Amino acid sequence: MTDHKIINDPVFGFIRIPKGVLLDIVAHPDFFRLSRIRQLGGANMVYPGAQHTRFQHSIGAFHLMSKAIRTLQTKGVEISEAEATAVEAAILMHDIGHGPFSHVLEHTLTSGVNHEEVSLMIMEKLNQEFDGRLTLAIKIFKDEHPRHFLHQLISSQLDMDRLDYLRRDSFFSGVTEGNIGSARIIDMLDVKDDRLVVEKKGIYSIENYLVSRRLMYWQVYLHKTGVAAEHVLINALNRAKDLARQGVELPCSPALQFFL
Amino acid sequence: MTDHKIINDPVFGFIRIPKGVLLDIVAHPDFFRLSRIRQLGGANMVYPGAQHTRFQHSIGAFHLMSKAIRTLQTKGVEISEAEATAVEAAILMHDIGHGPFSHVLEHTLTSGVNHEEVSLMIMEKLNQEFDGRLTLAIKIFKDEHPRHFLHQLISSQLDMDRLDYLRRDSFFSGVTEGNIGSARIIDMLDVKDDRLVVEKKGIYSIENYLVSRRLMYWQVYLHKTGVAAEHVLINALNRAKDLARQGVELPCSPALQFFL
Amino acid sequence: MTDHKIINDPVFGFIRIPKGVLLDIVAHPDFFRLSRIRQLGGANMVYPGAQHTRFQHSIGAFHLMSKAIRTLQTKGVEISEAEATAVEAAILMHDIGHGPFSHVLEHTLTSGVNHEEVSLMIMEKLNQEFDGRLTLAIKIFKDEHPRHFLHQLISSQLDMDRLDYLRRDSFFSGVTEGNIGSARIIDMLDVKDDRLVVEKKGIYSIENYLVSRRLMYWQVYLHKTGVAAEHVLINALNRAKDLARQGVELPCSPALQFFL
Amino acid sequence: MTDHKIINDPVFGFIRIPKGVLLDIVAHPDFFRLSRIRQLGGANMVYPGAQHTRFQHSIGAFHLMSKAIRTLQTKGVEISEAEATAVEAAILMHDIGHGPFSHVLEHTLTSGVNHEEVSLMIMEKLNQEFDGRLTLAIKIFKDEHPRHFLHQLISSQLDMDRLDYLRRDSFFSGVTEGNIGSARIIDMLDVKDDRLVVEKKGIYSIENYLVSRRLMYWQVYLHKTGVAAEHVLINALNRAKDLARQGVELPCSPALQFFL
Repeated sequence: MTDHKIINDPVFGFIRIPKGVLLDIVAHPDFFRLSRIRQLGGANMVYPGAQHTRFQHSIGAFHLMSKAIRTLQTKGVEISEAEATAVEAAILMHDIGHGPFSHVLEHTLTSGVNHEEVSLMIMEKLNQEFDGRLTLAIKIFKDEHPRHFLHQLISSQLDMDRLDYLRRDSFFSGVTEGNIGSARIIDMLDVKDDRLVVEKKGIYSIENYLVSRRLMYWQVYLHKTGVAAEHVLINALNRAKDLARQGVELPCSPALQFFL
Repeated sequence: MTDHKIINDPVFGFIRIPKGVLLDIVAHPDFFRLSRIRQLGGANMVYPGAQHTRFQHSIGAFHLMSKAIRTLQTKGVEISEAEATAVEAAILMHDIGHGPFSHVLEHTLTSGVNHEEVSLMIMEKLNQEFDGRLTLAIKIFKDEHPRHFLHQLISSQLDMDRLDYLRRDSFFSGVTEGNIGSARIIDMLDVKDDRLVVEKKGIYSIENYLVSRRLMYWQVYLHKTGVAAEHVLINALNRAKDLARQGVELPCSPALQFFL
Repeated sequence: MTDHKIINDPVFGFIRIPKGVLLDIVAHPDFFRLSRIRQLGGANMVYPGAQHTRFQHSIGAFHLMSKAIRTLQTKGVEISEAEATAVEAAILMHDIGHGPFSHVLEHTLTSGVNHEEVSLMIMEKLNQEFDGRLTLAIKIFKDEHPRHFLHQLISSQLDMDRLDYLRRDSFFSGVTEGNIGSARIIDMLDVKDDRLVVEKKGIYSIENYLVSRRLMYWQVYLHKTGVAAEHVLINALNRAKDLARQGVELPCSPALQFFL
Repeated sequence: MTDHKIINDPVFGFIRIPKGVLLDIVAHPDFFRLSRIRQLGGANMVYPGAQHTRFQHSIGAFHLMSKAIRTLQTKGVEISEAEATAVEAAILMHDIGHGPFSHVLEHTLTSGVNHEEVSLMIMEKLNQEFDGRLTLAIKIFKDEHPRHFLHQLISSQLDMDRLDYLRRDSFFSGVTEGNIGSARIIDMLDVKDDRLVVEKKGIYSIENYLVSRRLMYWQVYLHKTGVAAEHVLINALNRAKDLARQGVELPCSPALQFFL
């Protein structure tokens, strides 16, 4: 009997999920749902390898978070066991509210509600199921915990979300030069006055990260074909909405029907 | 103006599709359909990275075929331009008849018809659209061309189909030790008495390939969780068929309804 | 101020060497000497990339040892802090007695003394310099510590030495199919009745490891060109010895002169 | 009987050297000598993996040159068979004059003669041995051939020399984020008015290349420890020179003695 489950990740290798609240999240249907949502909506029209899911991304961001916490601890930053687990739980759930083709949906079906709000709603629901074991995670996610650098690890210019998705999107799209040095960047992290900072000698790694990010936007995220495919989808959905309002019956799943 | 299109593949890098009949196949909706069919039905229940599609696999197998032909030609095996294009076209289309969860479908909805027969039907259809430019490809696919080693490159113990899928399934599942030396094996191929053979010094590469294949069956293809997931799906579909026969109206797409 | 040094390894990424006796070993000139000794004597005649050194290999084996210890601990095998450091120190030093072209030397200059004996002599010397901090490491290395599985981690059919060198030699030679699944094998290790064992479900990984090892012997370690190059060198050295005995003065370094 | 030899490169995989003048160069002792000269003089003091040689680099640059020529040809740039072979021969030999610790030597032993001049001298010598088969290669190397873009492929801001060494130094040092997209850059090359140019859509790849290059300078080429090691060596050699001039007999090889 081990105290963890292992997930095999083509990007980072074996990732251990410790038993307890973290494994409870990963095993929950609301989380597993992410395994049917692609990370990069329409980009696979151009990059056939870009089939990876938000499930994989969330697991990868969790993995980097564990590394970051351990690095900060070895540099003398005090992070309690409870805080560590909470910030790991929070990064696991940071995308839990994403729907298929997220940005498409935000512009059509769920207009007025963005995926961050949905994520938070699902976290609150899970927290009830889990008897409050996610309370600290949610506080950190909402930046209501007094130690703000923990929130910055989840959401900032250098959060574990971005470090994972740039690396992962580069890996699966085959745009190899978008590969950022996530291990090096994490190794250079520190905390000063409750803010996440980067050691001086990390400056070129950061510049490289910024240029790689721009390259990924140029080559992948904003590629005209992928963007065009999303626009076609948006228009199709809006047209469906119009028709539905006029009383036309459309062949679609009950879940989609609900939104039309 | 170049004479080819490039597809970026995380496994093999840039793959060039020459203009002409090969690019016509890749650009056809019947081929692009494969980009929505996962290579490994239920394996992504266990290996979250295994989201890769039959589209990617078909492109990769084509890439290895080009390499194999060039290798054989440099060893003095005569292969005409027409034969080369035909065998490349045939490997591109070898999986074109696959449906979602292929083996599941074969046991439920399309019982009596396997995916190879569907592939052949679609090839014939495309051949009409393409004014007979696929005739030689289809002959080679059916092993009706007098040079049988060309068929063996598509379908045999060491065909380009297997060389690609073992490598690719290893890559995306993260089961790295399933990595076979496809470049080395291709480099050792030769033709003797119209049969595909392997040079003597390739014997250990072949043994390694066989063991890797077994390892992939054990760890990935026959993993209990993935197999179980497929059985659940088979039972669900058979139950749906029963209910449909009893007149129960089921909420599903018109395409699925057709088969029930 | 951190509590460790980082070494950047192309095979395993960042490897942390904790301050204390482990870093003292790595920083010692007797250890650094290994950075001028190639892991694969004459194999770079055939595989130009095989320039990697026993320094890199020793660091890599240390890295795998840390992983193995942590894995065993999470499975409930008790390993004290002192034992963990000792076994890590022992694997770091396991090759410290190697000379250039080790097997060549053993057959010519240092006949009668093999490299294991030299390693042990250097360890004893370092132990004096380090005020006895290596005593337990040496006991484990000599299998005189009552817990024999610790010795097996250093020297057995599945020791960390082999797991590193197969992986590393595959990486640097470019013989990619020699790549063993070291992470998976380590993850399957356990201890039963003071013996290192492998979990049942690891059987195919072990078979794959054995076949990969044989492939590496065939393709790399026993490649005729590399073996021939070593024989030429042995004959040249023996001839030099003969001439030196006859009083001929040979142009060579004082260190070599000493052995002639 | 094949018409080429294969070299297994950990960076680019199998590289084919066609029989004829190209293989004659690679098999020549003056070229093989490069297999004992490290690409990165003192950098392996910091990055233990950086043991790769100028032999490997020269083979890799040749490989990229073949790709670049083929790409330009498919874009309609006319390059004759003779020109292709000549420019491939020239890139193979571009570093043939390097001595150990090249820049160290240039500042001490061979002062007044840089390695480019030595390379040219060796090329002229080989050309005699090869009955003038290198004449066009040497003309291109010296930029005396009327088609200047061929020279630019060997020596310019985007030559195959740099594309190989940045990629290779990144690979072997383990500084993974120095990885440039050499395949993509080569794919974007074109020729306009006899000058090597980059297609417009390649701009971000070029920017990424420039930033990666700077990162490699910062992290690897100008790392203080490696630079310091070279200075120690320069001072040691200059001191040896002084002593030799004063008549002190120094224990060193005849080759070194010649220069003192």
